[in-house]
Amino acid sequence: MSAERPRRGSPTLRPRDGFRQRLNSYLLAIGDEIVSGATVDTNSATLARLLAEAGAEVRGIAAVPDDAALIEAALRRALDEAELVVTTGGLGPTADDLTTACVARVSGAPQQLDEEALAAIAARFADAGREMTPNNRRQAMLPRGCTVLPNPGGTAPGFICRVSHGAGARFIASLPGVPDEMERMAAAELAPWVASRQAGRRFATRVFTATGLSESKLDALLEGLLPEGGGRLAFRAAFPRIQARVTLAGSAGDPLEERLDALEQEVRRRLGRHLLAAGDVGMEEVVSRLLGEGGHTLALAESCTGGLIGHRLTEVAGASRFLGLGVVSYADRSKRQLLGVREATLAAHGAVSEETAREMAEGVRRRGEATLGLAVTGIAGPAGGSPAKPVGTVCIALAWSGGGWSRLYQLGEARGRSWIKMLSSELALDAVRRWVLGELEGEEA
Amino acid sequence: MSAERPRRGSPTLRPRDGFRQRLNSYLLAIGDEIVSGATVDTNSATLARLLAEAGAEVRGIAAVPDDAALIEAALRRALDEAELVVTTGGLGPTADDLTTACVARVSGAPQQLDEEALAAIAARFADAGREMTPNNRRQAMLPRGCTVLPNPGGTAPGFICRVSHGAGARFIASLPGVPDEMERMAAAELAPWVASRQAGRRFATRVFTATGLSESKLDALLEGLLPEGGGRLAFRAAFPRIQARVTLAGSAGDPLEERLDALEQEVRRRLGRHLLAAGDVGMEEVVSRLLGEGGHTLALAESCTGGLIGHRLTEVAGASRFLGLGVVSYADRSKRQLLGVREATLAAHGAVSEETAREMAEGVRRRGEATLGLAVTGIAGPAGGSPAKPVGTVCIALAWSGGGWSRLYQLGEARGRSWIKMLSSELALDAVRRWVLGELEGEEA
Repeated sequence: MSAERPRRGSPTLRPRDGFRQRLNSYLLAIGDEIVSGATVDTNSATLARLLAEAGAEVRGIAAVPDDAALIEAALRRALDEAELVVTTGGLGPTADDLTTACVARVSGAPQQLDEEALAAIAARFADAGREMTPNNRRQAMLPRGCTVLPNPGGTAPGFICRVSHGAGARFIASLPGVPDEMERMAAAELAPWVASRQAGRRFATRVFTATGLSESKLDALLEGLLPEGGGRLAFRAAFPRIQARVTLAGSAGDPLEERLDALEQEVRRRLGRHLLAAGDVGMEEVVSRLLGEGGHTLALAESCTGGLIGHRLTEVAGASRFLGLGVVSYADRSKRQLLGVREATLAAHGAVSEETAREMAEGVRRRGEATLGLAVTGIAGPAGGSPAKPVGTVCIALAWSGGGWSRLYQLGEARGRSWIKMLSSELALDAVRRWVLGELEGEEA
Repeated sequence: MSAERPRRGSPTLRPRDGFRQRLNSYLLAIGDEIVSGATVDTNSATLARLLAEAGAEVRGIAAVPDDAALIEAALRRALDEAELVVTTGGLGPTADDLTTACVARVSGAPQQLDEEALAAIAARFADAGREMTPNNRRQAMLPRGCTVLPNPGGTAPGFICRVSHGAGARFIASLPGVPDEMERMAAAELAPWVASRQAGRRFATRVFTATGLSESKLDALLEGLLPEGGGRLAFRAAFPRIQARVTLAGSAGDPLEERLDALEQEVRRRLGRHLLAAGDVGMEEVVSRLLGEGGHTLALAESCTGGLIGHRLTEVAGASRFLGLGVVSYADRSKRQLLGVREATLAAHGAVSEETAREMAEGVRRRGEATLGLAVTGIAGPAGGSPAKPVGTVCIALAWSGGGWSRLYQLGEARGRSWIKMLSSELALDAVRRWVLGELEGEEA
C-alpha cells in the first residue's frame, strides 16, 4: 500500500542544528538474507526513526552476512564511529546465528547462562505447548554483565552490553531480526534507555500526516515553522501519504508538549484541509472513524480502481459498521444494469465523465440503501486513452440524499497504472472525508 | 502487496559453494533520507540480487549520510573489503549531492566535464521541453577516465571508475538513488560489466515462483536438487509468493541453459500444482493471462476480502477483457438482493459457509453473465469469530455453467486481518487458475 523512494536533493533532514550533543549511534544488520538481496532491510529505517526520536543521531548503517569474521570486523569499525552500536538479527537458535558470540568476543565479556532469560524462554515454550530444544537454551547464553531486553513476541531476548573501546565507554545493543519483535523491543526498551542517557536532555516528537501535497509543497508550507536551532523538521513520503515529523529538544523541565501543542495549531492553520491528522494514520483509518462516528453508511461504485477503495476501507477493522455494498463495474453493461446509469448518459458523455460518475454514485447509493454513494471512473492505462481523455483522466462523484458533487482530474500517465489507481482512491476517500466534515462544496439537487 | 521479513535460521543462502572465485563487491547507499529512517533502502537488495546473478559476491552493505567526510571514509573502508564498490545516490544536481566529488577524491581522478554525458543531459531536457540549469551541468562533471553509464530514465548519468588501492585494481561504480533509474542502469550496464570480468566464467539464473508453500516446505521439496557445489539455491518470500532462484556457474562454453531446462523439469515434477511459473510473476498476472487466453470471463463476489481480488486483478493491464463485474457484499442484505443468496441458506448455515459461498458464486456469475463466478466469505477479524467459526475461517467457491466447487479454510487469527485477506485472495485466485488448467476437482451439478 505504500511506495517509498529516496528523494534526491530534498531536505528530509537538517543536520547540525540544536541536536549536536546527541548520542552517536551506528546500525548493523546481520544476515545472509540481507546481503544476498533476498530480504530488504526495513529494520534499520525503523530503528533510525526510533533512535532519532529518543535523541540519538545515526552516523551510518551497515549490513554483513552470517560470517563471524565479517561481523566482528564490522562491530569494531562501528565502535570506532559511534558510542552506541545497535545490531539486528543473528540471535536465533541455529548454527548460523552468530551475533551473541561475536559481541561477546568484541566486548571481552564471555557468554554465560542468564537464568532470567532462560526462564523467559522456557515460559514462552510452555505457553505455546511446545517443547524447548537444547538449541533454544543457547539463546540464553548472553555476554556477562549485559542488561537483558525481554522479547514479548519471540524466543530470542535482546541485550545491551558495555564495551571498553578507545576513550570512554561504548555500548552494543543487540535485537532480533524479525521486524515485529525488533520494533516492539526497540520502542519499549532501547529507546527509553537511549533517552535516559541524554544527561538531562529530553526530546519530544509529533507527526503530522497530510494528503494531496507533494513533499516540496509541504516543505514550502512549513518553512520557518521552527526557529533556527529550535528543533528538527523531517519529511517522510509513503505514497499517497506524506508526513512531517517535528522533534523538539530541551532540558528535563522544559514544557516540550506545550510547545508541540502550539506548533500543532500553527501546522493546522498552514496546511488547512491537507492535514489529515496529527499522528501516523492513513486516509482509510480517518474515513472509517468519521463514517462510524457520524453514523453514516457508504456504498461504492468502482470502475478504474477495481476494488481498491473497498480493499483499503476493509483493511481497518469495523468496516461492516458502514460499508454495506461495493460494485466493481468495469463493463458498461453493469454500470447500466446494476447502477442504473442511463444509456443516453453513456452515449453522450462516455463512461469516463462526471455525468456517468454522478449517476453511478446515485445508483449505488440507492442500491446499497446508504447515506452516501461514492463513484470512481477513469482510465488507468496503459491503453484506453484518447486525445480528449488521456490516460490518467479520472472522475469522482459523491451522491447523498438531495445532493451531489463531482470532479474531473487529470493525473497524467507517467507514473503508471498502479499509481493512478492509488491516487484515485486517495482523492475519492478524501472527498468522503471532507463531506463528513462539512467541507465539501457540493450542489443541492 | 508484499511483506518481506528476515527469516532467521533459514537457508536463504548457502555460501562457500562453487562460487568462491567470484568478484567481491560492497554496496554503499548514500543519503540523509536513508540514515534518518525516512526511506527504506530497497536499492541495496535489488543490486545484491542483480550482482549475484552476474557472478559477484556481496561482502557487505553500508549506508552513510550526505556528509563528504563520512562518504569518503566509507568508500575507503569498502575498498579495503572488496574489488568493486557500488554506490547509489548522491548524483543529483543539488548541493547535498556529494558522491561524484568524493569518488573523484578517493580514486585520485579529478572531476572534468564529460561532453558526451553533457550532451545526453541536454537532450533529455530538450525532449521534456524544460530548460537546463547550471546545476544540471554539474552532473556531467565526472571523474577523469571513467566509463559513463547512460541513464535513460533520468538526468544523472552513472559511471565506473578505476581506483588504485593497495594490491591490484579496484573499481567504484556509482548509480543514482531513484530506484527505477538505478535498477534499469544496474541491469543494463553494471551487470553485464560484472559478468564480463569473470575471466571466462559464466553464470545463468532461473527463478521459480510458487504458491501455497512455506519457505521451509519449499526448501524441503527442493532438497538435493543441485549436486554439492554445482550451483546456488536461494529463497525469497514476498508474501503470498515464495520464490526459489537457481544459479549455475560454468565456463564460457558450458551448456548452462540446457542444464537449467533440465532442472526446471525436475522443479515442475517436485512442486506440482504449487509451481505458479518459471519467472518472477504474481498470481494476478498468471490468472489474467490464463483467463484472457482461454476467452473466459469472471465475476467476483467478495465479502471478507473487501475488493482485494478485484484490486489485484486490475493491477495487471487488460483486466477489462475478462472482468465485467465485482460485488463487495459485506451486508447479508446485499448477498440476498444482489447475489440471490437464499434467506434459508443464510439462516441454516450462516454468511460464512460453503453453502452461502456457492450461492454467492452462482449469483454473481449470473448477474455478471460470466463464464465463472468466484466468491469469498470469511471472518478477517479481529471481531466476529466464534468457537465454531473462529477468526480466519474462510470459504471460497467457484461456479460455472453446470458445476461448482467450494472449500472451507481455517487460516488462523494470529497473523491478523490484512494477512487473512491477502491469503484468502491468493487461495481464491489459485482456485481460478486450477479451474482454467483443468486441475480443479469440481462437482458437476
